[in-house]
Amino acid sequence: MKRSSVSHLNSGIARALEVVGEWWTPLIIREVFLGHTRYDEIQGQLGIARNVLSDRLNTLVGAGVLTRVQYSERPQRFEYQLTEMGRDLFGTLVMLKAWGDKWLSGDNSTASVTHAACGTSVLPMVWCERCNTVVNHDDYALGDLPGTTDPIL
Amino acid sequence: MKRSSVSHLNSGIARALEVVGEWWTPLIIREVFLGHTRYDEIQGQLGIARNVLSDRLNTLVGAGVLTRVQYSERPQRFEYQLTEMGRDLFGTLVMLKAWGDKWLSGDNSTASVTHAACGTSVLPMVWCERCNTVVNHDDYALGDLPGTTDPIL
Repeated sequence: MKRSSVSHLNSGIARALEVVGEWWTPLIIREVFLGHTRYDEIQGQLGIARNVLSDRLNTLVGAGVLTRVQYSERPQRFEYQLTEMGRDLFGTLVMLKAWGDKWLSGDNSTASVTHAACGTSVLPMVWCERCNTVVNHDDYALGDLPGTTDPIL
Repeated sequence: MKRSSVSHLNSGIARALEVVGEWWTPLIIREVFLGHTRYDEIQGQLGIARNVLSDRLNTLVGAGVLTRVQYSERPQRFEYQLTEMGRDLFGTLVMLKAWGDKWLSGDNSTASVTHAACGTSVLPMVWCERCNTVVNHDDYALGDLPGTTDPIL
């Protein structure tokens, strides 16, 4: 898929996928969230081809999701850390995990993400602040953009 | 990427991506959420190659995310509707859109997703029910699975 081919969509989702939507990329970000910040750790955890991993890491550094930090001078070695932009993917990962756990885990449930302060499992949700209620897929609308009639997700 | 190559991860995220992580797939699901349920509509909106679209749609129907419903007998025509499993991706799409809007939209903001009942923009978030607070990336922990020491996101 050519990236320019979805630029006509003016979609936040399309823009996000241009940065984090390639195969392997969300799993690489997941590894960094899990504390596997070094090239060899990520490579070993995922079993990903080295050229593909290098390509994805370069893309993520270029987009500002990861930053490359030197941790050894001799030999010169680097690790990858999440930027604020990268850490902000936390919600998307938790939401995606919840969906995978609910619909695809079978008997192999994965570990829960908990609130560190109290140990309670977190709930990813879409919330209406005004009504103090969860918003589900059957109760949303798409606001128009000024100057267009396209509802854009 | 071979799907079996990440099966060792026991990760909800990896399982989710096996179903919805291929290039185009989240954008196809977005189109169906926007009400573009027919093959030609989806194809026209995305400008996707027909063989790729057919492949992705078949995968999504096989996985239970979409269902194929006949809407015309002569000629025989079908549309694609979200199943409950598919509609449950709403939160992930809204979370991804919020991230794309925040970090990548530049001056081209996309439309807001609102609560249909009141018109207020929705907030995707990770929530702790016990503490009544939003959980951010700097305040979470990963619970251990029984019988394993691997923290698994």
